[in-house]
Amino acid sequence: MAKLVECIPNFSEGRNKEVIEKIVDGVRKTEGVKLLDYSSDASHNRSVVTFIGTPEDVEKAMVNMAGLAYENIDMRNHTGAHPRMGAVDVVPFVPISGVSMDECVEIANRVGKSIGEKFNIPVYLYEKAATSKGRQNLAVVRKGQYEGFFEKIKDPNWKPDYGPTEVNTKGGCVAVGARVPLIAYNINLDTDNIEVADKIAKVIRHIGGGLRYVKAMGVKLEDRNIAQVSMNLVNYEKTAVYRVFEMVKMEAKRYGVNVIGSEVVGLIPMAALIQSVEYYLQLENFSMKQVLETRMWE
Amino acid sequence: MAKLVECIPNFSEGRNKEVIEKIVDGVRKTEGVKLLDYSSDASHNRSVVTFIGTPEDVEKAMVNMAGLAYENIDMRNHTGAHPRMGAVDVVPFVPISGVSMDECVEIANRVGKSIGEKFNIPVYLYEKAATSKGRQNLAVVRKGQYEGFFEKIKDPNWKPDYGPTEVNTKGGCVAVGARVPLIAYNINLDTDNIEVADKIAKVIRHIGGGLRYVKAMGVKLEDRNIAQVSMNLVNYEKTAVYRVFEMVKMEAKRYGVNVIGSEVVGLIPMAALIQSVEYYLQLENFSMKQVLETRMWE
Repeated sequence: MAKLVECIPNFSEGRNKEVIEKIVDGVRKTEGVKLLDYSSDASHNRSVVTFIGTPEDVEKAMVNMAGLAYENIDMRNHTGAHPRMGAVDVVPFVPISGVSMDECVEIANRVGKSIGEKFNIPVYLYEKAATSKGRQNLAVVRKGQYEGFFEKIKDPNWKPDYGPTEVNTKGGCVAVGARVPLIAYNINLDTDNIEVADKIAKVIRHIGGGLRYVKAMGVKLEDRNIAQVSMNLVNYEKTAVYRVFEMVKMEAKRYGVNVIGSEVVGLIPMAALIQSVEYYLQLENFSMKQVLETRMWE
Repeated sequence: MAKLVECIPNFSEGRNKEVIEKIVDGVRKTEGVKLLDYSSDASHNRSVVTFIGTPEDVEKAMVNMAGLAYENIDMRNHTGAHPRMGAVDVVPFVPISGVSMDECVEIANRVGKSIGEKFNIPVYLYEKAATSKGRQNLAVVRKGQYEGFFEKIKDPNWKPDYGPTEVNTKGGCVAVGARVPLIAYNINLDTDNIEVADKIAKVIRHIGGGLRYVKAMGVKLEDRNIAQVSMNLVNYEKTAVYRVFEMVKMEAKRYGVNVIGSEVVGLIPMAALIQSVEYYLQLENFSMKQVLETRMWE
């Protein structure tokens, strides 16, 4: 099984096309990684890059990109609608296959250390890589933003995990972490009544007493004139796709409503699909190594 | 999506370890292909090699192996329990991903032509690559075996598709074809009564009036003291795994028997798994390109 890690760094530049391309080149020019996607938002003045590769290559590509970002972005001139704390704002590492969360935490540590030392940037580890409970939540870490960190960093509670104990005026600070992959998953109902979708969303989701790793809301698909339960599955390992699907189906029944289909928006790790096949076909002792294609990339 | 073809050539040498390794080196020493498995049987005096790769690389590896086999195997001295018609006995190409059956038929033609011309071997195209109905079935093509082909080849019906119209005394003849991947799939029942498994097998399988691409029989798993419906799915695209699973479950019911699990023996193409997820989750517009891992190997 090939070791695969995904990295989705966010940069504080979403307007200057030339600078954005320069930064993305950090991935393009690193061997062994594959650029999956990048997109920029002018009002947020922010870009999100998605790439995958082996742990070593992803690390290398990420440090390269960070260097390019610190060269080309000056936080003193940055404005934008999205909260941000640095030129490289947040760097999550996500295990995809053959890699554990612990390994991604190690990667976050190594990359955090590199960024701290090489570029003289204060680094905060977050989510699964956090060094204390209070640093797990990215929003809490980032609170105060670039401007506020000049004060915040003086608080002993906010001593950086790596790098200097002073904000880098040009580059700001950065949050580096590890997390599970997100899956955008929607379930379509055979009703045009959005209230039904809303009611289902409310009982299915974590905050409503539902499944722990589900965020959900009802939406109306105007073109098809149907209601949809639109979801983010934030930990498919613990809250499996099939479980979400079956529970929505079950809840829909009380309204006499049927599920007419479901959809995965964007990418999904193979393991999330196999988890569902294993359930429905009651597969015994199945291993991802039995998937022919995976053998090609061992 | 990476283009992937599987090739499973059978060679008429299962005893001389040195010769077998020499032939397998034909795969090992070809860039871009991956050796998945090889096994030899002394009483059959035969070896089966499994490898995958891009169409071009698989073609190259196969022609390399054929050359090594013709150098090292002499059919005049060959004895063994398994029917065979040549040093390279049979060469099936199997589409795995991003490749159509038509492309595999083209590969079979190109490789057949190469073997015919380069090594002076009569070549018969079989199964999906067959040039007539009478040549689809490998057993029919191979009938008479190496020894019988000296006469059979004179029959205008058995004029080779490529190569000379006379048997190569040292190398014999060869069957080259294209076929869909086989899936070995078993379903376990909560009964120790093999008769139940047998009865289910008989109605599920093609010859009993069941699903067209299913071969099935009942077996007893002595260690677990349960009965099993043991199957070969010979065309998962047309007869999907989930359909077989649900039908066995349905048939088991009439005996008050439940399915306690199922198992995939060996390898399975990703597409066969996705087909089942799509069914059970009622997925709309899902594409294999949405599987994260596949993006790495585009």
